[in-house]
Amino acid sequence: MRLNWGMVGGGEGSQIGPAHRLGAQADGLFTLAAAALDADAAKGRAYAERLGVAPDRAYGDWREMLERERGRDDRVQLVTIATPNATHFEITKAFLEAGFHVLCEKPMTMSVEEGEEIVRVARASGRVCAVNYCYSAYPMVREMRAMVARGDLGRIRLVVTHFSHGHHADAANADNPRVRWRYDPAMAGISGQFADCGIHALHMASFILGDEVAKLSADFAATIESRVLEDDAMVNFRMGRGTVGRLWSSSVAIGRQHGFDIQVFGETGGMRWASEQPNQVFWTPLGGRTQIMEKGEAGLSEAAARLSRVPIAHPEGFPLAVANIYVDLASAIRGGAQDGLPQAKDGLRSVAAVAAAVESARASGAWTDARPPMFR
Amino acid sequence: MRLNWGMVGGGEGSQIGPAHRLGAQADGLFTLAAAALDADAAKGRAYAERLGVAPDRAYGDWREMLERERGRDDRVQLVTIATPNATHFEITKAFLEAGFHVLCEKPMTMSVEEGEEIVRVARASGRVCAVNYCYSAYPMVREMRAMVARGDLGRIRLVVTHFSHGHHADAANADNPRVRWRYDPAMAGISGQFADCGIHALHMASFILGDEVAKLSADFAATIESRVLEDDAMVNFRMGRGTVGRLWSSSVAIGRQHGFDIQVFGETGGMRWASEQPNQVFWTPLGGRTQIMEKGEAGLSEAAARLSRVPIAHPEGFPLAVANIYVDLASAIRGGAQDGLPQAKDGLRSVAAVAAAVESARASGAWTDARPPMFR
Amino acid sequence: MRLNWGMVGGGEGSQIGPAHRLGAQADGLFTLAAAALDADAAKGRAYAERLGVAPDRAYGDWREMLERERGRDDRVQLVTIATPNATHFEITKAFLEAGFHVLCEKPMTMSVEEGEEIVRVARASGRVCAVNYCYSAYPMVREMRAMVARGDLGRIRLVVTHFSHGHHADAANADNPRVRWRYDPAMAGISGQFADCGIHALHMASFILGDEVAKLSADFAATIESRVLEDDAMVNFRMGRGTVGRLWSSSVAIGRQHGFDIQVFGETGGMRWASEQPNQVFWTPLGGRTQIMEKGEAGLSEAAARLSRVPIAHPEGFPLAVANIYVDLASAIRGGAQDGLPQAKDGLRSVAAVAAAVESARASGAWTDARPPMFR
Amino acid sequence: MRLNWGMVGGGEGSQIGPAHRLGAQADGLFTLAAAALDADAAKGRAYAERLGVAPDRAYGDWREMLERERGRDDRVQLVTIATPNATHFEITKAFLEAGFHVLCEKPMTMSVEEGEEIVRVARASGRVCAVNYCYSAYPMVREMRAMVARGDLGRIRLVVTHFSHGHHADAANADNPRVRWRYDPAMAGISGQFADCGIHALHMASFILGDEVAKLSADFAATIESRVLEDDAMVNFRMGRGTVGRLWSSSVAIGRQHGFDIQVFGETGGMRWASEQPNQVFWTPLGGRTQIMEKGEAGLSEAAARLSRVPIAHPEGFPLAVANIYVDLASAIRGGAQDGLPQAKDGLRSVAAVAAAVESARASGAWTDARPPMFR
Repeated sequence: MRLNWGMVGGGEGSQIGPAHRLGAQADGLFTLAAAALDADAAKGRAYAERLGVAPDRAYGDWREMLERERGRDDRVQLVTIATPNATHFEITKAFLEAGFHVLCEKPMTMSVEEGEEIVRVARASGRVCAVNYCYSAYPMVREMRAMVARGDLGRIRLVVTHFSHGHHADAANADNPRVRWRYDPAMAGISGQFADCGIHALHMASFILGDEVAKLSADFAATIESRVLEDDAMVNFRMGRGTVGRLWSSSVAIGRQHGFDIQVFGETGGMRWASEQPNQVFWTPLGGRTQIMEKGEAGLSEAAARLSRVPIAHPEGFPLAVANIYVDLASAIRGGAQDGLPQAKDGLRSVAAVAAAVESARASGAWTDARPPMFR
Repeated sequence: MRLNWGMVGGGEGSQIGPAHRLGAQADGLFTLAAAALDADAAKGRAYAERLGVAPDRAYGDWREMLERERGRDDRVQLVTIATPNATHFEITKAFLEAGFHVLCEKPMTMSVEEGEEIVRVARASGRVCAVNYCYSAYPMVREMRAMVARGDLGRIRLVVTHFSHGHHADAANADNPRVRWRYDPAMAGISGQFADCGIHALHMASFILGDEVAKLSADFAATIESRVLEDDAMVNFRMGRGTVGRLWSSSVAIGRQHGFDIQVFGETGGMRWASEQPNQVFWTPLGGRTQIMEKGEAGLSEAAARLSRVPIAHPEGFPLAVANIYVDLASAIRGGAQDGLPQAKDGLRSVAAVAAAVESARASGAWTDARPPMFR
Repeated sequence: MRLNWGMVGGGEGSQIGPAHRLGAQADGLFTLAAAALDADAAKGRAYAERLGVAPDRAYGDWREMLERERGRDDRVQLVTIATPNATHFEITKAFLEAGFHVLCEKPMTMSVEEGEEIVRVARASGRVCAVNYCYSAYPMVREMRAMVARGDLGRIRLVVTHFSHGHHADAANADNPRVRWRYDPAMAGISGQFADCGIHALHMASFILGDEVAKLSADFAATIESRVLEDDAMVNFRMGRGTVGRLWSSSVAIGRQHGFDIQVFGETGGMRWASEQPNQVFWTPLGGRTQIMEKGEAGLSEAAARLSRVPIAHPEGFPLAVANIYVDLASAIRGGAQDGLPQAKDGLRSVAAVAAAVESARASGAWTDARPPMFR
Repeated sequence: MRLNWGMVGGGEGSQIGPAHRLGAQADGLFTLAAAALDADAAKGRAYAERLGVAPDRAYGDWREMLERERGRDDRVQLVTIATPNATHFEITKAFLEAGFHVLCEKPMTMSVEEGEEIVRVARASGRVCAVNYCYSAYPMVREMRAMVARGDLGRIRLVVTHFSHGHHADAANADNPRVRWRYDPAMAGISGQFADCGIHALHMASFILGDEVAKLSADFAATIESRVLEDDAMVNFRMGRGTVGRLWSSSVAIGRQHGFDIQVFGETGGMRWASEQPNQVFWTPLGGRTQIMEKGEAGLSEAAARLSRVPIAHPEGFPLAVANIYVDLASAIRGGAQDGLPQAKDGLRSVAAVAAAVESARASGAWTDARPPMFR
């Protein structure tokens, strides 16, 4: 039986909205039953109806949706929140308190305090509060995590990760509102490129290693004059168990399209994954040759195998990584097992790391505690 | 409004079944409303119900499904046929004659005569009869087709394509029924690897060039002793407008996973696409440098742009190529435009080319007309 | 002690001349002591002197060089012949008969009869007569040969090779004399692209497999109207021990630069090498993952290890493959071991295979014996 | 006429010795006329003779060589110094003062003071004092430098470079003397991996940009317990004209073989080069597609074209990059033009940058002036 699902935000023209709809529907696990898709109520209602939502559940705003849905027997069981960043806190909190399961886009909140509040509310609610760090749901990323967990690499010495692109490199286009907001503290908050992309890479390091980022040192630069917030960031870090970390993130790297990759080096092996070729891992055992691991090959861990739909070398891409988040959500909502779903505590850790990086960058790279106070 | 959709075959454990379900549902265009999924009626019904089909529309076999559905007001509008190859003809014909739209797995039929019959029936029915040559629905394949159509490469001199893998290379496993049937004339018909994989490459050549395969010369080999049908095939061909073609297909190419690629060379440029990296095309204008074209980049043709769901360098994979077939089907069923949907005549051409290749191979590579009689 | 070395042809502006000089001198094994570099005697002498040849050994033509050198005590021990193709036979024969060791550029001769004559002369002379199939001297090609020889792949079922480029694809430039001669029977003989490039691929197949090409079927095309000889060729073949072969060669493949690669598939593994990345082999054992083998890695065969000069992942390129031919020549001249030097019989086999391919192509691809009569 | 050339160090079993001999001899520009190859005098003399050096010029040590050669009319014009690092200063200084041209292996000296002394001595001598940053002599690296110089990328915002390998990752082998010395201050001085490999990347950034490293912040880690010096280093830097720099270097990156690459991002384009594929540059103009530039293609700058020996897509590797250093040296010695030869001032800048990085790393990454005092 399908679960009823609702969306807040992600309306027409949104980039992430289609990925959520595809992700929720691809495996037939969720039906889009209610939605408040747009700040423009009429536009949002009309689009929801075009997407097949019944007219009485095509809402004008999230408050209306929350009020009406909470009273229904067939209320949506999961709400996806894909609104502007500054609103995530309020909406997530409200839906959790009303007893809905929530999948929130990143960043979960704009401040560490808000992040800690969401963690507390989620705990109290007994509901799932997930955050969409969807890259972690690629089968081969799950495989890397399983490899680390079972000790294939021994102690992890080093993790090196990049998330760089060049889509904001055109100075002549820097005042375009779709680009500009990202570097304007009034709209983006305290961080630009690092909070936008780099944080995915930092989450991935924690995810694969099963370890937390303990402290960090950041070097931020705004390479286009009109920008206040950084468009290029380098973050050195140390993890709880001592692993050395290196993270570079940029939005002025012309020629990089979606340059998100990660390399993990341990005592007995190293491995590499890249988001533009997400179905492969290059794995090198100490003293041996590099091997190309393929999604769907025989002998992968259950954690990876269960998230793949088509045979080896039939590529599965980004929308199905999002779908894998929904696979885990469906299981979690039904009280079943899930393994790897990013949750409120992960969202909080990311928010705290961004705050620490900003503080460090302002202090010429001083090493700064990256943990949220409630987890120190 | 979603369209009602039915499946025949593609039950539990099938490889292609999940791709169809994901493809039909991903964009919210179809609802799985009826199904006859398995030769084992009870098993098929149970699985259909688990997939959300109402119990009264979870059928024991395709005849039951056809009889009951044809009488319903809310009957399924499209039927996907994913049964064993030898049954495609009979089932496809029956559903078309009963007024259903059909998507048939390849091969459409086992003989040229049957293929011509389907073309005639489809024409008479006024229904869509599509064949699942889904690789042709990747956005960047559509882009290549648009580039050829608008003359970017000038006259096409040469097309070179491969579809090779090594998954049937283990002689010790050659008697495994899942492998063996493919090389046994009693089950697979007249051709092994060429009919299985090579034909996708041949269709792709026709599709991208907008031209038919006119004649061919084939060299088949069974490199594992126990096999009757070929596990390695080379086909030279000429297209209607004179383009020279080269096609290699193998199932004993250890190390190739899903080695389907195509290169097109014209008077003013050349290009290359590979199914394991389906979101890129390498394009070289005459006298210029090779350029990496990316799915989602600015300036792609409408034919490519409309079939992409997420931004540049966010990979989209095989299941979404299948989904693109369903996007075109939904449009065609609604009487709207579609551009590029492989149809009965394409299915027939493929069946005729397989027959010609077998005839040529038996005659030591004699050049043989590859066209179905009705199109000569 | 260095060996004295002489060159015939390969003068200023020649493409292959510099590669020979670099190859012969790189390891300090040969000193260029005599030369007849150019059809224009004065130009040839002047250039030889600029290259450090003593004035009395800077000759105006090869006959003068042969006469004068044969009388010297310090005569050159090896003569490299890099003149126009049609002259190879006469010059090679003359130097062999005069007791010089010879390295001849390919093709060794223009006809099978001449080729057989060279084999006989070389045998009678007791001198080394090598032919510059230099790709076979890359360390990783030698490694592949060693892997086949020691049975890593079991019986070889299939070899697939390409040598394609797009440098002759510009129809507007087709009358340029530097391009045109290649497709003009008056200058190039019976074959164009296949004799120019394809034959390297065919030699490589024989070399790596340690087997001869027994018979073949060819499809030739001249895709630019003004050409008489083929600019695109496909050759299917069978080797002495039954291996199936596929060879594609083209000079109109815009975007391919130097697209020479080879794949070998056996019972227990497959491997791939490409000339543009010559320091790696991709090796896949049956049922295992693809491994990246690197020139210079631990555990390579002596055949490969001895031909590498710098550590792993420090690339060595084409000129050093030529140098490896000279390494083997120096050893052979001194009566030492050499393993893998292509010799007159290999040159003959290549000439015979070209003749067979031309005959087959003229006969619509009829299967044709590819062996020289003296080896049947 | 060839130049007479001498070597100090680089004896039998040395890694860099063969690369120098091949580099000096490949183009026929130098003759190895004198040598003091080994700390073991007898062994050094014997090896020199085997390499073709006359017995009276096969010296037992560098002092003997210097004394005897300075008195000869045919004395060597260039001396290559490839001895242990700590001896570079003394030997380089002595040969320069005696009027020889010198090519010194890196590091030029162990301290900044010594480096400044060499710069002064070289200036006073009027002789060429080059340092073997040979990666900068790859044709495509010279092309990148020319592109920056003529403004193809506009102002350079960002340079990102890596030099990482995994050859020192085996903890069980860490006490092997061939590995251990690199991390032992008694033998290696103040820095391990950064001074060994990272400094090549830093030099490359300066070289391509035509700019100096002004200040830097370093994070060093010894990831294997027994090590004192760093085996992993991250250095953030700023160049004289404000370019932001990121440099990662590691010797525990299992799976990286020779992972030296560099990316340069400017206002109007970005480009990438990797040492394992040194004949290509990936170039992306702002708003355009990534293009693959090839060594040997039409239209390259004279700076690149003059350093390539064989046609496009015929790879040239590391030994020929070293040869290009000798090409420039021969020209400089003859008073001709050279463009790009790394000289004493470059060697000094590298030594100063290492010292600054060590100081910064000890001070938790404090930003530190990277310039030698004499250039501030």
